Amino acid sequence: MTHQQYMQMALDLAARGSYSTAPNPQVGCIIVADGQVVGRGWHERPGEPHAEVYALREAGALASGATAYVTLEPCSHFGRTPPCADALIDAAISRVVIAQLDPNPLVAGRGVEKLKAAGIAVEVGVLESAARTMNCGFRSRMERGRPWLRVKLAATVDGRTALANGASQWITGTAARADVHDFRARSGAILSTARTVLRDNARLTARTERCEQQPLRVIIDSQGLLEPTASLFQESSPILLVQTAATPDRAVQWPQHVEVWTAPSTERRVDLQALVAELGRRQINDVWTECGAELAGSLMQEGLIDEWVIYVAPKFFGATGRGLVEIPIFSNIADAPKCIFTDVRQIGADIRIIAKPDTGLGE
Amino acid sequence: MTHQQYMQMALDLAARGSYSTAPNPQVGCIIVADGQVVGRGWHERPGEPHAEVYALREAGALASGATAYVTLEPCSHFGRTPPCADALIDAAISRVVIAQLDPNPLVAGRGVEKLKAAGIAVEVGVLESAARTMNCGFRSRMERGRPWLRVKLAATVDGRTALANGASQWITGTAARADVHDFRARSGAILSTARTVLRDNARLTARTERCEQQPLRVIIDSQGLLEPTASLFQESSPILLVQTAATPDRAVQWPQHVEVWTAPSTERRVDLQALVAELGRRQINDVWTECGAELAGSLMQEGLIDEWVIYVAPKFFGATGRGLVEIPIFSNIADAPKCIFTDVRQIGADIRIIAKPDTGLGE
Repeated sequence: MTHQQYMQMALDLAARGSYSTAPNPQVGCIIVADGQVVGRGWHERPGEPHAEVYALREAGALASGATAYVTLEPCSHFGRTPPCADALIDAAISRVVIAQLDPNPLVAGRGVEKLKAAGIAVEVGVLESAARTMNCGFRSRMERGRPWLRVKLAATVDGRTALANGASQWITGTAARADVHDFRARSGAILSTARTVLRDNARLTARTERCEQQPLRVIIDSQGLLEPTASLFQESSPILLVQTAATPDRAVQWPQHVEVWTAPSTERRVDLQALVAELGRRQINDVWTECGAELAGSLMQEGLIDEWVIYVAPKFFGATGRGLVEIPIFSNIADAPKCIFTDVRQIGADIRIIAKPDTGLGE
Repeated sequence: MTHQQYMQMALDLAARGSYSTAPNPQVGCIIVADGQVVGRGWHERPGEPHAEVYALREAGALASGATAYVTLEPCSHFGRTPPCADALIDAAISRVVIAQLDPNPLVAGRGVEKLKAAGIAVEVGVLESAARTMNCGFRSRMERGRPWLRVKLAATVDGRTALANGASQWITGTAARADVHDFRARSGAILSTARTVLRDNARLTARTERCEQQPLRVIIDSQGLLEPTASLFQESSPILLVQTAATPDRAVQWPQHVEVWTAPSTERRVDLQALVAELGRRQINDVWTECGAELAGSLMQEGLIDEWVIYVAPKFFGATGRGLVEIPIFSNIADAPKCIFTDVRQIGADIRIIAKPDTGLGE
């Protein structure tokens, strides 16, 4: 087995935490002694032991002189649990192979330093790209102070999200809709607008058994359109209602799980940069956005979209149907916002396209 | 090797004729004696020998007692070449395995009868579905009296074929455009409109080395918009200019490779059913349509589209861009025209979606 193969095993373990580790990163660890995997661990949820601890526990005395494969640089500080670097040193591990450094610039490299100072051989960068992708949300929050933001769109093959009369349920099939609930469950927050909530009477909860913790529902309602009777509020998971100083004060008595946040605004519109920064401060790693063409266009204009998840259904609504994104008109094709298709697959009868903005800069 | 494996070899041979056999079908033949392939043949172009003849020629005396795998029922009549059923009988072939019967209802089964009457064992239906797909154009003309009609569309990921100002060159990348020329080269006719020709100053020729014979360019110009100076007319391959009795008579002197055809019409619009029937009479198997939203919508309404080939580019034109198909407005999602995605793949930076209308009836 190669370094890459062992690291892939560690990544596979790390992936088991995708519904539960937030706001912590997903981490997996494998301990290999004499070509045998003697320890396995992954981080399951905040406050619980890190991947390395579980793997060392399983390896026991076999950890002495063994190699540890960890998908993220072992921590060197006391958080809710003691530093994993110390645990590896105490167990007499002789070599540590790491996929990626800790993305937090304040701590990156310190775990490696500590291990090296203890005489442990350290190698960094094995399957780094896959490891970075896995924790794109955590990385985004650490490096940019804001979450990784995905925009979900569902359209017909002729690019329409609704009929001219607004009807849109359902465009996609059950498999695609289940996929959406899976994305919701893996996200720390769902971002939407009052208009979308009203149109679909949406609850915006993650309806899948795999969901460990319902995402925070962040609803922009700058015009004060929502009423506490909406289905949205009948679900008990937390809601952040985003208004501005200009939102009409209607003296509404919101249920206890609703927090009203007054966002900075320009011309009565929520400052989206400030909103995502606020979500970063609230330790949200991943935002899943379900909205109409207007917010999608605004997020695009603000450069806030990290990933598009577009479901394409095998039907036609015709040229009078509603579009996907509203952006200012332009006259040269060369000026069109570009993206890169990173994953294209059929999901049930539909197609799912994952794309990231093409900034022309590479990653 | 199984029947299926030998038939697949015959199908692979048949596919070599995809640029040259029209209006004849593509046919491949394999002759197997004692588990060895001793003869191979495929139909190359009209007037030249059929697949069976080439395969028998290669097999020589080894054909005696051998099994022949043919992708289409051997012919039993004298056309431009003598009947292949007779050739197989004369060569003392002992068994013939056939993928599909001749789709021409007037001849289907007669080749099989002739073979059986000569004491040859016959099996029909091995890899029939693949063989039928390969000759969908020939089959369509034989069974329905009209060609197989594909509509090509190129759109952004937000479903726009042009900017609000009409700019559309280029939406897709070079690989997708090369794929289009390949489809053109495999089609007997390219169908378009004066409006599309004028907008792009299009030549509508197949610009690929693989093209053996330029397709007939069928241009609907019911309003008499085209002038002989357009680039279209500077290319020498034949053009069928489709007008109606109401088209203004401008006494234009068209070049010799242009035939003006006055189509039946309703309210000054070309009767599309009559047009495709006419193309069937002219022995066109496959029509490749490149047009705007209006003709695409009309063809759709008339139930004339057999296949959609949709290229999706990684860019956004926004909600003000032009749509893919113009169809009458409707108010229930259940009434949306449906399709089935039969092939989805990335071509260069773009995605190609092949879809067929979902009639709710299966094939």
